[in-house]
Amino acid sequence: MGSSIEAKFDKLATDHAPGQETRQKAGNIATLLRGERIDGVAVDFSHGDVDAFVPAPRSFEAFGAGVERGGSQAYTEYRGSAEIRERLAARLAGFTGAPVSAEQGLILTNGSQGALFLAVASTVAAGDKVAIVQPDYFANRKLVEFCDGEIVPVRLDYLGARGRAGLDLAGLEQAFAAGAKVFVFSNPNNPAGVVYSGEEIAAISALAERYGATVIVDQLYSRLLYEGQHYTHLRATGIDPERVVTIMGPSKTESLSGYRLGVAFGSARIVERMEKLQAIVSLRAAGYCQAVLETWFAEPAGWMDERIALHQAIRDDLVSRMRGVEGLQLRMPEAGSYLFPRLPELAVSTADFVRILRHQAGVTVTPGTEFSPHAGDSVRLNFSQDHKAAVHAIERAIELVGRYRA
Amino acid sequence: MGSSIEAKFDKLATDHAPGQETRQKAGNIATLLRGERIDGVAVDFSHGDVDAFVPAPRSFEAFGAGVERGGSQAYTEYRGSAEIRERLAARLAGFTGAPVSAEQGLILTNGSQGALFLAVASTVAAGDKVAIVQPDYFANRKLVEFCDGEIVPVRLDYLGARGRAGLDLAGLEQAFAAGAKVFVFSNPNNPAGVVYSGEEIAAISALAERYGATVIVDQLYSRLLYEGQHYTHLRATGIDPERVVTIMGPSKTESLSGYRLGVAFGSARIVERMEKLQAIVSLRAAGYCQAVLETWFAEPAGWMDERIALHQAIRDDLVSRMRGVEGLQLRMPEAGSYLFPRLPELAVSTADFVRILRHQAGVTVTPGTEFSPHAGDSVRLNFSQDHKAAVHAIERAIELVGRYRA
Repeated sequence: MGSSIEAKFDKLATDHAPGQETRQKAGNIATLLRGERIDGVAVDFSHGDVDAFVPAPRSFEAFGAGVERGGSQAYTEYRGSAEIRERLAARLAGFTGAPVSAEQGLILTNGSQGALFLAVASTVAAGDKVAIVQPDYFANRKLVEFCDGEIVPVRLDYLGARGRAGLDLAGLEQAFAAGAKVFVFSNPNNPAGVVYSGEEIAAISALAERYGATVIVDQLYSRLLYEGQHYTHLRATGIDPERVVTIMGPSKTESLSGYRLGVAFGSARIVERMEKLQAIVSLRAAGYCQAVLETWFAEPAGWMDERIALHQAIRDDLVSRMRGVEGLQLRMPEAGSYLFPRLPELAVSTADFVRILRHQAGVTVTPGTEFSPHAGDSVRLNFSQDHKAAVHAIERAIELVGRYRA
Repeated sequence: MGSSIEAKFDKLATDHAPGQETRQKAGNIATLLRGERIDGVAVDFSHGDVDAFVPAPRSFEAFGAGVERGGSQAYTEYRGSAEIRERLAARLAGFTGAPVSAEQGLILTNGSQGALFLAVASTVAAGDKVAIVQPDYFANRKLVEFCDGEIVPVRLDYLGARGRAGLDLAGLEQAFAAGAKVFVFSNPNNPAGVVYSGEEIAAISALAERYGATVIVDQLYSRLLYEGQHYTHLRATGIDPERVVTIMGPSKTESLSGYRLGVAFGSARIVERMEKLQAIVSLRAAGYCQAVLETWFAEPAGWMDERIALHQAIRDDLVSRMRGVEGLQLRMPEAGSYLFPRLPELAVSTADFVRILRHQAGVTVTPGTEFSPHAGDSVRLNFSQDHKAAVHAIERAIELVGRYRA
């Protein structure tokens, strides 16, 4: 075991990753504290609260039916149950506006994280250049690094742009011109909560065609669109279908994270590789869990609308409070359940402030550096939480911003 | 996306992998057939039948309790729920005879396949030499190839050896001397069903120490030991605990494959890497599924003994029938539920005979080439099946061996 594997894993640090906070040590935090602890219900904004927004209806019943089915549900093809793929393919085609082949172009995975891993590892070989957005989902960078690919960053000016997400399209073209053969991005963007405009998606599509690139688009939050928003599916732009892998899953809006389900669909060539890789990574998504996908895109009428309205109300309450903080910059999220405020200048580092928030106010957030090296003064909050507890937690956080101002 | 990634995935072919048979085309099989189809209940020996040997008691109830627990069970640490690790660590230490650290030395994974992937990818960098056994679990080879490692094969003379598994210990030492830093093997061996003797395990331990190698030992079937068998846990030989990762899981003997659960335990340094990697591969084993591990190593008294006795009875019936086939070579399995007969010389290739078995007799087996390039005349059968159906299926297979003899 040489030093090369050690170096590789040093880059995959998870100490500040969402959900890993319990493994952190308190360290020297006592020496930094100003004032007393502020009491209140602890809120973990590092991920959604599935006790506040409970799993979509009939999920447990569908799981139980899968267990009842027995062996055929436990041992599916590596790419997932043919029956479930058949049903899902039609629904996903309807949602995204372009055909999906159940037989060749769809794979069920261990969460959308599993789909992302398989898609990146099936398209990126050692030394390959890969364009990724800054900021974007923290794993994108790590996945490219794990595959020994070379990251070519493309900036997203989410704070400055209006009517569009703010992708630096000239930068994307430069990345392709410099040899990037794969582009990975999330839409809506995680962490900024912005939706790419129709023009931006059309431009991405045209550039990918011109330069012969493959695009992996993580659409995990594309069902949770707020009032007045319009969403453009890259795969429906007329782009060569073999160039695109679209990733979705029911872990977020539908609160089914505990079942670890995701899907990837599109390019048959890449899906075939993904299945080969899944065969040695985990064999398949848990067979019984796959059965829960029967309920996906088949929720009771009105259920999704209500869930969106409840999230929009939380968003609006949190944003209105944050907008009152001098020097804090924030773009109103257009979709999903993330807020990504840039904090005013503080007397402590953002990393320390994140620890202080947790220890002094019971508020857990994720530091911006997980998403971009240029977001050191930002933090991400997943506001899929109990509404009242979230508002109170934000008020505590705002009080601490005041206490620790530079 | 260069040709290097295509070449890499060409090596990961899954066409003949267990469970993927439904994706095969019938091809030219009609031209090969001799005689009529033999009717009987179809038996898929490529994996165990969880409708014949049903999931261990209380598994579904434990899952339901996990769903009830809600968010804390859905979003565990990447290495798995701390409470469940705490309980399992004690049980695994008791079973294997050496301490297990719940905090530092245990990770819950997506099946034991997930544990194997994470362990290999956490120890093998591009160009590293890795010793693997021939024959052994088919994924071992593919995992090393995926990591761009170099395979150094070590033979297992399971047919010739008596009182030991038959590992070529001189070959293993040569592999280490040639620079192999990692050794991966299954014990009991999959596919041959043999258990490594205490002397063999002691020798592996001593060689790993002498050459500074890491050993990944897949003990998936180590609970299913037949009468008179003694099992030696490598981790209890006094070997430096940081050198060993032990892999187990409840998918086989306990029939919990539909929940996709596995564990790896031992080296804290490697487990830490495995967690970092799991964070980008799938985040974690499905949170609700993790709850099922509460029942593992805590089955009702007598349950495991009965399950072993039932498997032993099937084994004995199948072996006695196979022993009547002239020219068929077979070692009596000492553990697990695999038979790995070497077939007599046939007039068709083994690959064709495997297809003929399926189409003419409804009997699915896995070709030996999945496990070793030297096992082209062997097939693997998982005999964890309905007893009567398995015996009848073997009688049909034996009839076909007669029909297709060279």
